[in-house]
Amino acid sequence: MELPTSDAPVSDIPLSVRARHTHDQPISYFMQQAVENPGLISLAAGLVDAESLPADEVRQAFDEILSRPRTAQAALQYGTTQGFHELREKVLAHAAALDSRAPADLSLTPGNVVITTGSQQLLYLLGEVLFDPGDIVITEAPSYFVYHGILASLGVRTMQVPMDDAGMNTNALEELLIHLEKTGELERVKLIYTVDYFQNPSGLTLSLPRRRHMMELARRFSKKHHLFILEDAAYRELRYDGADLPSIKSLDEGNRHVLLAMTFSKPLSPGLKIGYGLLPTELMAPLLRFKGSHDFGSCNLAQHLVHRLLDNGAYDRHVARLCDVYRAKRDALLETLAEEFPADTPGLRWTRPEGGLYVWLTMPVETGPDSAFLKAALREGVLYVPGQFCYVRGAGHYPKNEARLCYGVAPIEQLKEAVRRLGRAAVEVGAVPACGLAR
Amino acid sequence: MELPTSDAPVSDIPLSVRARHTHDQPISYFMQQAVENPGLISLAAGLVDAESLPADEVRQAFDEILSRPRTAQAALQYGTTQGFHELREKVLAHAAALDSRAPADLSLTPGNVVITTGSQQLLYLLGEVLFDPGDIVITEAPSYFVYHGILASLGVRTMQVPMDDAGMNTNALEELLIHLEKTGELERVKLIYTVDYFQNPSGLTLSLPRRRHMMELARRFSKKHHLFILEDAAYRELRYDGADLPSIKSLDEGNRHVLLAMTFSKPLSPGLKIGYGLLPTELMAPLLRFKGSHDFGSCNLAQHLVHRLLDNGAYDRHVARLCDVYRAKRDALLETLAEEFPADTPGLRWTRPEGGLYVWLTMPVETGPDSAFLKAALREGVLYVPGQFCYVRGAGHYPKNEARLCYGVAPIEQLKEAVRRLGRAAVEVGAVPACGLAR
Repeated sequence: MELPTSDAPVSDIPLSVRARHTHDQPISYFMQQAVENPGLISLAAGLVDAESLPADEVRQAFDEILSRPRTAQAALQYGTTQGFHELREKVLAHAAALDSRAPADLSLTPGNVVITTGSQQLLYLLGEVLFDPGDIVITEAPSYFVYHGILASLGVRTMQVPMDDAGMNTNALEELLIHLEKTGELERVKLIYTVDYFQNPSGLTLSLPRRRHMMELARRFSKKHHLFILEDAAYRELRYDGADLPSIKSLDEGNRHVLLAMTFSKPLSPGLKIGYGLLPTELMAPLLRFKGSHDFGSCNLAQHLVHRLLDNGAYDRHVARLCDVYRAKRDALLETLAEEFPADTPGLRWTRPEGGLYVWLTMPVETGPDSAFLKAALREGVLYVPGQFCYVRGAGHYPKNEARLCYGVAPIEQLKEAVRRLGRAAVEVGAVPACGLAR
Repeated sequence: MELPTSDAPVSDIPLSVRARHTHDQPISYFMQQAVENPGLISLAAGLVDAESLPADEVRQAFDEILSRPRTAQAALQYGTTQGFHELREKVLAHAAALDSRAPADLSLTPGNVVITTGSQQLLYLLGEVLFDPGDIVITEAPSYFVYHGILASLGVRTMQVPMDDAGMNTNALEELLIHLEKTGELERVKLIYTVDYFQNPSGLTLSLPRRRHMMELARRFSKKHHLFILEDAAYRELRYDGADLPSIKSLDEGNRHVLLAMTFSKPLSPGLKIGYGLLPTELMAPLLRFKGSHDFGSCNLAQHLVHRLLDNGAYDRHVARLCDVYRAKRDALLETLAEEFPADTPGLRWTRPEGGLYVWLTMPVETGPDSAFLKAALREGVLYVPGQFCYVRGAGHYPKNEARLCYGVAPIEQLKEAVRRLGRAAVEVGAVPACGLAR
């Protein structure tokens, strides 16, 4: 965010109550500081690998679209609020096929699909549709910090449930729901939010038994009103090992409880800013009214592009290639971590994700913005996201010794160097012994 | 909007208060009916001319962008919330050049520019930044009905001031402001909204003396807080005759009061969904916080495309060609109106816009959705927007005998045929004598 300086007084600017209560996320300042440090290798930014972006595929698809008057005019004219019909058909078939299902089996038609400006816009629109100030959303601890910002701007209370290697602890979720029912607050609980494949930030995936348990809880605790699950499956298609798991959406008989958010930003290109949602019928009309007020439809040209890439097979080929690229990057990160950080150090561990872009590192020392470890890391020339940004403030105790490492952006040699720099920083602050495995 | 049918009960869906109070605009239903009538020539849809969409220019620009790794990666990677920096520089220079000014003369830097998903998103974001329920916006009567929908969804009261051939009557605006000050409501007035070039729906343009008067009123009535002017100049660059007028923004010394909304949808391509705003410094940070929550940046690829087209001159050449296309279409519409509608019919008149896409027709009979004239027009196979949709409901008396005719979409021969059909409909309902000039 680049702002001009001004000597104007701000007291007489009539901002709305919401604008006056919406603040920069603390991470913004932190990230900005980092940008100003050249030579730094960032494991913090959640961007994607640049080399593998599908430039040739996109160029060829545009060439095809724009060289025929009919398709060119359709792409360059206004679209519809809900999104390009043929794209909605395609993404619905695509999402269902990931679960080896037909759309009708899931009680879904193209009328249940909306195309959005990235999945972020879907998260915001759903917030407008569902939440009043004081409502409650339950999510994982840690969880996707950008979503916390949306919820805060809408005045929503975020409650977090612990995770382990099988994702959100659904027993703890059940206990929380029981507790909220006892205290009379169940009515304020509108939504369970989960990033259930290779979670941002932890890299962890929700196990199948827990998917079933979460689904059962959403049904059981739908008392005075529906309890929804927002399944943010942004990383699902970036799986490098292991068998795919069914979406929670595929367990949602009758399309009643699960709002599935998907995006082309991670598996294709973030520059297109195209995401989509598969939603219960009752939410479509209110959501489209808000979407109409926002923009009456996301970039139509980008929608036609994505449709073409799905249609001609370029998308599937690209995802397969991309998984090879990220598998190698993940492996480089994990292997270098094993070389640089002694496995038997008390309090030290990290996740080994089967997909996605993130490894979650737990350190025996604090990792926050003012910590000695972060300062040492910056001196060595490496940046990570302090884990504490992934917990909701003011909601009790949260760990201050974790870090999100993203292997999306940096090339393999830089990833290795970044981890070596992290290792040196860890030695400097006494977090690991100087006689690490690789030394 | 396409919705699946469902037999599910809707009573247990926990919608937000805002969602429950946001309704389809009455025009939505009306437009939907029209879509189902094949053979109809629509003068209602506010789309643009299809034949002249810049397919070759866009294809060539993408070819250039995507064939070089550096520019391809920049366009396909994440952008920033505020928008592509080089595009912000370009649009600022472009907007200032329209007023023969340099950005610095207008106290503007690229930090005062935001790129949005069409200008519609800018209107929505500004609504979130500025308005609390019960606040007041003053606009023209008639005015852009889509904006009324945004305001209603935010709980804003819209007040309308009459127009004449010189645009909004600023003496009436002054009287209204004086009245609101007396009743203690001036504090609730946040904004004057004007589409000041070839207005949608009337085709009328705000005169230079009234631009100065409106600017003076905004300054004078900024008492406890700033009174802003939202200048929606979407059609400015589509001028077919006459001399350009300076923007109100160019009269806003020190960049204090005027929020300028511009778009590439009309002069280039609506499919790109790229608009931009030039805003006072104090509004940038709050606006960008909302924009970050919405989508953290509009489609980056489309932004890089627009930048390229501005940079290589294709945009300017396209606008010049487009003005020739629309001038011919406007002339065809006006000439056929003069042939079909006797000029001396009492109560009959229409505007003669120097640019934009709309002619405003005043009839001696009612034109509303249930009127005999509209039914006759549909029988003859032509559709217009009933003028009453362009007035705020519940704000007192409004005319029911007007029509918006858009010459954007239909080719010239269809425009002529559409007006002949309108003429026959007018004869059928006795609005004009059967012995019209052309008969």
